[in-house]
Amino acid sequence: MKAISGRLERQIQFLIEIDKTMQVFRKTKLFDKSRFENAAEHAWHLGLMAMVLGEYANEKIDLAKVIKMVLIHDIVEIDAGDTIVYDTKSRTEAQEKESLAAERIFSILPENQKKTFIALWKEFEERKSPEAKFAAAIDRFEPILQNRLTDYYTWKAHGISYAQLQVRNKHIQDGSKVIWEVVQEIFSEAKEKGEIKDE
Amino acid sequence: MKAISGRLERQIQFLIEIDKTMQVFRKTKLFDKSRFENAAEHAWHLGLMAMVLGEYANEKIDLAKVIKMVLIHDIVEIDAGDTIVYDTKSRTEAQEKESLAAERIFSILPENQKKTFIALWKEFEERKSPEAKFAAAIDRFEPILQNRLTDYYTWKAHGISYAQLQVRNKHIQDGSKVIWEVVQEIFSEAKEKGEIKDE
Repeated sequence: MKAISGRLERQIQFLIEIDKTMQVFRKTKLFDKSRFENAAEHAWHLGLMAMVLGEYANEKIDLAKVIKMVLIHDIVEIDAGDTIVYDTKSRTEAQEKESLAAERIFSILPENQKKTFIALWKEFEERKSPEAKFAAAIDRFEPILQNRLTDYYTWKAHGISYAQLQVRNKHIQDGSKVIWEVVQEIFSEAKEKGEIKDE
Repeated sequence: MKAISGRLERQIQFLIEIDKTMQVFRKTKLFDKSRFENAAEHAWHLGLMAMVLGEYANEKIDLAKVIKMVLIHDIVEIDAGDTIVYDTKSRTEAQEKESLAAERIFSILPENQKKTFIALWKEFEERKSPEAKFAAAIDRFEPILQNRLTDYYTWKAHGISYAQLQVRNKHIQDGSKVIWEVVQEIFSEAKEKGEIKDE
């Protein structure tokens, strides 16, 4: 496209590149159980979760920042793929791949936007700011809710125990004590029904 | 879930309901041509377009409002389905269905959130505010870019002419003159290549 600036050309290239997020399939299924969810759909769903559940953040949050964070948080999976949070070894390896992916993909953007996107992605990963803590809470809440509505599909398929659920999701309470309460109820119910093992 | 409030119960029900957006397929294909895009993926992609191309809005915009608008704008298609913008008769019929859908779906939310969501959706539909004009511009730009990258799939499949493209997309210039220039180049190229008819 000849009439457009180099800056705009890069921005459009980035928007084309990230379409691949729609080809990254997650380990959890849609609520209707019909198929696995992809990373773009997941990000959209988290955007809506932020808009609807933002009032339950423990701390005062800049909601717009949370929304932007969740929209971009899984773009790195274009290169790094999706790894289940309960596989701690794979998650450590994935973190390196994700850093390289962030550098490659966000570098398609003009320099100032690259900086903004990388900073936002790192803030999400570090889980220190009120926004990142809340974003992390909803990022965990969505697959938990999906499990509850799909006969605990992922937990059963990967043999996840009640103890693992507690350990790998405990940071939800740093973002939202209210969401953590809901999650506790879902975990207990799954255990009581005998759908997941204790240890 | 017994321990949670009626308010939170409604919010979760809404978040479950909108998962159906992922089952609404559009008329345009992903950039890699592998399949049709669904309305949730489209909304996510527009969120990213807003973040990346927001600087090209004609007027000063509240970017967070644009992002929220595009994230929710097609939820009504759960009931109303996706209609191609070039079919003006279907579009008029669809508008009534979409109003009913907005009422049904956003009413799942607590009253104050219902009001916020309906107001945001109406603002988008009316295309009067700077945010709505820009949101409408990117909502049209995405499928145009998809057509350019998929050998003009939708335009050819539905026999769309150069004249129709001009008429049905002319409001892009109200949101962004820069994006309108890019779009003009894409339209001209398609015509010169003989991929679309003139009238």
